Amino acid sequence: MQTGAPVNRPIWFNAQRKMVQIIDQRQLPHEMVVVTLDTVADVVTAIKEMYVRGAPLIGVTAAYGIYLAARRSVDAKDPAGYLADASQRIKAARPTAVNLRWAVDRVLAAVEDQKTVESKIATALTGAQAIEAAEAENCRRIGLHGLQLIETLGNQKGCGTLNILTHCNAGWLACVAHGTATAPLYAAFDKGIDIHVWVDETRPRNQGAALTTWELAAHGVPHTLIVDNAGGHLMQRGKVDLCLVGTDRTTSLGDVANKIGTYLKALAARENHIPFYVALPSSTFDWNLKDGIREIPIEERDADEIRYIEGLAKDTPTRVLICPENSAAANYAFDVTPAELVTAFITERGICKATEADIRRLFPEKFS
Amino acid sequence: MQTGAPVNRPIWFNAQRKMVQIIDQRQLPHEMVVVTLDTVADVVTAIKEMYVRGAPLIGVTAAYGIYLAARRSVDAKDPAGYLADASQRIKAARPTAVNLRWAVDRVLAAVEDQKTVESKIATALTGAQAIEAAEAENCRRIGLHGLQLIETLGNQKGCGTLNILTHCNAGWLACVAHGTATAPLYAAFDKGIDIHVWVDETRPRNQGAALTTWELAAHGVPHTLIVDNAGGHLMQRGKVDLCLVGTDRTTSLGDVANKIGTYLKALAARENHIPFYVALPSSTFDWNLKDGIREIPIEERDADEIRYIEGLAKDTPTRVLICPENSAAANYAFDVTPAELVTAFITERGICKATEADIRRLFPEKFS
Repeated sequence: MQTGAPVNRPIWFNAQRKMVQIIDQRQLPHEMVVVTLDTVADVVTAIKEMYVRGAPLIGVTAAYGIYLAARRSVDAKDPAGYLADASQRIKAARPTAVNLRWAVDRVLAAVEDQKTVESKIATALTGAQAIEAAEAENCRRIGLHGLQLIETLGNQKGCGTLNILTHCNAGWLACVAHGTATAPLYAAFDKGIDIHVWVDETRPRNQGAALTTWELAAHGVPHTLIVDNAGGHLMQRGKVDLCLVGTDRTTSLGDVANKIGTYLKALAARENHIPFYVALPSSTFDWNLKDGIREIPIEERDADEIRYIEGLAKDTPTRVLICPENSAAANYAFDVTPAELVTAFITERGICKATEADIRRLFPEKFS
Repeated sequence: MQTGAPVNRPIWFNAQRKMVQIIDQRQLPHEMVVVTLDTVADVVTAIKEMYVRGAPLIGVTAAYGIYLAARRSVDAKDPAGYLADASQRIKAARPTAVNLRWAVDRVLAAVEDQKTVESKIATALTGAQAIEAAEAENCRRIGLHGLQLIETLGNQKGCGTLNILTHCNAGWLACVAHGTATAPLYAAFDKGIDIHVWVDETRPRNQGAALTTWELAAHGVPHTLIVDNAGGHLMQRGKVDLCLVGTDRTTSLGDVANKIGTYLKALAARENHIPFYVALPSSTFDWNLKDGIREIPIEERDADEIRYIEGLAKDTPTRVLICPENSAAANYAFDVTPAELVTAFITERGICKATEADIRRLFPEKFS
């Protein structure tokens, strides 16, 4: 790894070299590759091609994108126009994550208040770093609140291992630090609670198989990889005590857009009387939305992500075709889990039910 | 392909060469490889390593295994002992499919009635061929009954394409001919009904991606490959009109053991008011069982089937590692869908509800 890369961080500002750097998560778990983001195009590519993924990290990366755009705007004929155009390009990189638009708008607003180019650049950097720090702190708090939940469930179970199922990667790789769904896991493990994590592979991009297993192994948390198909069986047989996932976008009524397949797990959890919790920083709420099924656009990605699977063959990154060549394939990236299937949210301010009233209790200023 | 291989058959007796031959389905969809089964060990390998898969085909392959054992028993010191031992080895090749034990016991009983070695061999061959022919005829009838269902659903919908979701491969590759879940699809397509099939990839072995797509493409049936995670989203958005799957073992009360992940789709179908049908020849019923969750053993297979994915890289069969090496992984091959989630069964004798009373109506002799 290059100098300056911190531990357990997927993005950082290298102050000595004045560089924004990220882990190229597409190379994990097999190789740790650090990439420097220098231009707006770099940022768009990193988000679009999923060098970085996860709602909070996408937001932070986008915020740093505005900083990079501010730096570049010095050489533009129309600096304001350059910055506006860059913002649009970054916002368009992925359609579902609300953090992306939120982070861009927030940094941009601060920058536009500044008069000189130098102060615009400095403000953009400060703004991006502030979002980064806030996300890390939010995840730390999510971990503390989730820890209480896990302690309670552990006490209710009485003895033996507490089995927790998670889908996709809502770890520090997705969230600057701690993670959202993983923050309570790390906190519980660090406190010596006997937990075991069922890790959904998470097709088609295998974030569970490639990233969550890697994160949990690095931290020493006991875990077992399963295919996405297995969760229902495990829940039916009493082998899951808690489902804990992240979210990419959540409505003010509590509907949850998360990685495709989350909805199926939520249905199985309800059927088998297993608590289904969603961990999220409040930046993931889209306060303007109510009905997730009707209002959240679901990104459709390249069918080749389904036709081909990437992995390591004889130590060489390789992608293999798993169906007839040119087979039609549809690649929906997210699904919506209705609020009624969610037991509760774990947020930086505490735990609340997936109802407008209880969300309002924790975040009253958002409803005024 | 070798001479003597029929069209749309996964196993056949080559009468000229007196050879049992199969398609090695592990090589599909990329290559058509025909394998000759000569010994009991060949049969056990073909079943265990999934050259052949699918309950009816496993049964027929096992029946031919008794024929091969009868031929080999000529050279054994204790022919009866050799045959008994071979039967046990074949029965033990896979634990879940009831057809396996049923077919072995049926051919073995006929063989044991014979006095001479020659008549034992001839009886075993006749017995295996009879099971093969019966399975093909059963699937043909399943297709006819299922066709009526699809016609009815199409009329109810009124206009537009009828979208049918299927899981795993319950096609002719699994069933000697026509298939179980695919038989109604082929019959409907052949009759000019406007259908489209959502094909679940079916991790970890990707039978949907590799086999069902290949079968449907060969027949010209419109279809789209999806990851197993996507079905809930599609059902929620009204993009599925019917779920149609096979089964590996079914209880007399209507509980269905089928490929892992079936249960999740059944839950989503009920939630979204979509009919969930299971197509099966009655040989798949295990008349002695009632409670599928308590009584059906669920096969656990090698974790490497999850850690590695096989496909084609630059025209070369290749397997790639998709998680950290040596990551723990659990590989449950089947799950149980409780009868209450099944709209009805499509059998060779017609359609019946997933209740003991209605199953008894179609198969009264099994309950006497």
